[in-house]
Amino acid sequence: MITVEEARQLLFGLVATMPEEQVALADAAGRVLMRDVKAERDQPPFAASSMDGYALKSAEVERHAMFKVIGEAAAGQRFTGTVGPGQAVRIFTGAPVPEGADFVVIQEDTDLRGDLLTITEDPGQKTNIRPAGVDFTIGDTVSAPRVLSPEDLALLAAMNVPFVSVATKPQIALIATGNELVMPGEAPGPDQIIASNSFGIKALLEKAGAHVRMLPVAQDTLSSLETAFGLAEGADLVVTIGGASVGDYDLVAEASQRLGLEQSFYKVLMRPGKPLMAGRLGDAAMIGLPGNPVSAMVCGYLFLVPLVKKMLGIQTVDPILHQAILSKALPPNGPREHYMRARLESDGIRAFEDQDSSLLSVLARSNALLMRPPNDPARAAGETVSYLPI
Amino acid sequence: MITVEEARQLLFGLVATMPEEQVALADAAGRVLMRDVKAERDQPPFAASSMDGYALKSAEVERHAMFKVIGEAAAGQRFTGTVGPGQAVRIFTGAPVPEGADFVVIQEDTDLRGDLLTITEDPGQKTNIRPAGVDFTIGDTVSAPRVLSPEDLALLAAMNVPFVSVATKPQIALIATGNELVMPGEAPGPDQIIASNSFGIKALLEKAGAHVRMLPVAQDTLSSLETAFGLAEGADLVVTIGGASVGDYDLVAEASQRLGLEQSFYKVLMRPGKPLMAGRLGDAAMIGLPGNPVSAMVCGYLFLVPLVKKMLGIQTVDPILHQAILSKALPPNGPREHYMRARLESDGIRAFEDQDSSLLSVLARSNALLMRPPNDPARAAGETVSYLPI
Repeated sequence: MITVEEARQLLFGLVATMPEEQVALADAAGRVLMRDVKAERDQPPFAASSMDGYALKSAEVERHAMFKVIGEAAAGQRFTGTVGPGQAVRIFTGAPVPEGADFVVIQEDTDLRGDLLTITEDPGQKTNIRPAGVDFTIGDTVSAPRVLSPEDLALLAAMNVPFVSVATKPQIALIATGNELVMPGEAPGPDQIIASNSFGIKALLEKAGAHVRMLPVAQDTLSSLETAFGLAEGADLVVTIGGASVGDYDLVAEASQRLGLEQSFYKVLMRPGKPLMAGRLGDAAMIGLPGNPVSAMVCGYLFLVPLVKKMLGIQTVDPILHQAILSKALPPNGPREHYMRARLESDGIRAFEDQDSSLLSVLARSNALLMRPPNDPARAAGETVSYLPI
Repeated sequence: MITVEEARQLLFGLVATMPEEQVALADAAGRVLMRDVKAERDQPPFAASSMDGYALKSAEVERHAMFKVIGEAAAGQRFTGTVGPGQAVRIFTGAPVPEGADFVVIQEDTDLRGDLLTITEDPGQKTNIRPAGVDFTIGDTVSAPRVLSPEDLALLAAMNVPFVSVATKPQIALIATGNELVMPGEAPGPDQIIASNSFGIKALLEKAGAHVRMLPVAQDTLSSLETAFGLAEGADLVVTIGGASVGDYDLVAEASQRLGLEQSFYKVLMRPGKPLMAGRLGDAAMIGLPGNPVSAMVCGYLFLVPLVKKMLGIQTVDPILHQAILSKALPPNGPREHYMRARLESDGIRAFEDQDSSLLSVLARSNALLMRPPNDPARAAGETVSYLPI
């Protein structure tokens, strides 16, 4: 069996970076920028006032000095003349500073009677002028790849960029398998349960930036599975869940192999989630998740989310483990990397008592996966452990 | 002037919790659950095998014991008979445990010849049976309010909940004002700049769970502003940005007052963002953001995001400040709460040199707002400071 990290690297080898597409800036939040954007203008494009006040010559600035106000400069409407000696121009925040002026006295430091302005307070040294290009200048770059934040969008807008090149969202087809499954809202037979994994995995993948199609539940027959794989046509990634009713993956593996699967790996040295499989299936990558709900979600965090990020061209994709103080002792771990459902509180982190991989209620109460390395010895309260926030 | 916290409380008083709507579970990720959901079934609904193996009587379990295999129980298809003494039923993970059996020997511990099963290894004490209802039982509750996580969705699906009651998304109308503004993609005149705030604020609000309409840029005239407010009809919250070209908010305040604004406050003891205003305008709350890009975004984090959360019925809505070690000394702060653009790295947090509120490039490089209380004394590197992650 291979390790979690080895499995992740093999998975990364199964996918390519998505092609780019153009989207309007207003729709680009959270998308991954694929091409550097260069500013084609300076910001501000002119020296601009940062305050409401009066533009005049700095050499003439002193308390009790008097000026004649000869015009007005507003944002969007400059004063077209030149400020001469003894002259001032009423100016508002964001307005271009008129020619001849190099200082803005804020209005609170002045007194205006008619068109006669007096500086009544010491205006200090600050010019209250933003030089042209102080925010950015032509050629300044917003570099790719980056997940576009609200701040990035504001900056790109200021650069006059109406469209950006972002990674196309990976198309993921989700196939839950099992005769025992019905969809929420249906009436399950006495031996049946509700397909729940698809809902958690879909939400996780969409949050990571993928587009997810939830296909109909496949029955445990080769023909039903082949039909489902047929419906997945066009997907960049096919994710199956389960196949447990006739032994883990027997039918999923057989059906996908009939369709030409080149298997990359089967089984990972981890808990839960051991019976993970992956390979290439035609133009798509394929991952077979275990059917136990918690196993499927843990594999989602450890493998699917990083894989989607990789496809989107994001540079840092591996799950980032944090450190916390254990608030309750743990027994020794077995030979597999163990991701325990856990709760991080102000007094530290503690794993839930029952770690059975069927328990969605425990998973929903968790906010962390506490990671135990293989053969980790018993840990006492107060020791530092690693966890993945969820 | 009022404090940031006072302003936030006044804002909360301007809005009500949104009404609820029903959405399909597959579309409910990230939405805010408004009604408790009670399980109407047990999970699992029957005692189920957690392994592939053989179901038989625990009293008969010992190494070398032999059994006759009388049938099969698969997930979705139970064995309808009863397991008698000396009998076993082939069973797969998730299948109902047949009547008469109370133990599953995993297949790795057995040898099967024809229909004759021998236990070859010591099967230990673990029954490998998940009792009915071990995950949840009828009446177990997923409680509102909560932001629905992928794990919540999986749990709700397992409870057979096809639709959930969530808070309707607040409708927010965004009005950027100013003669100097054109939209990205347009050709700005020599005195003009690009409307950038709307893009950052829209992304921030949508991430918080709102639906945002970006209205056309309003010119600095009462009639243009009144037209814009008219277009905002039906919104739960109207957000204006700027109005700086004729002094902060003069026209926005005048236009909104003509339309019946009941002003709640104007100006907050903070930096940047001082000239914030808010009130009730007909059926909507109204907030006037300052026009400087960084001021607008800081007000977005401090006021708009908490307000949207409040409208969605989320319980903890105030921004949560974190602590970090200062990696570069800071001068004393003035009388206003100061939110400095800062970068948190592994060696601590440092504020950017230039804190001018027009600098989007600095904001885009920031990952934190370093918070200085009013009149905070100078701080040396190594001291602990508070910050808001952005």
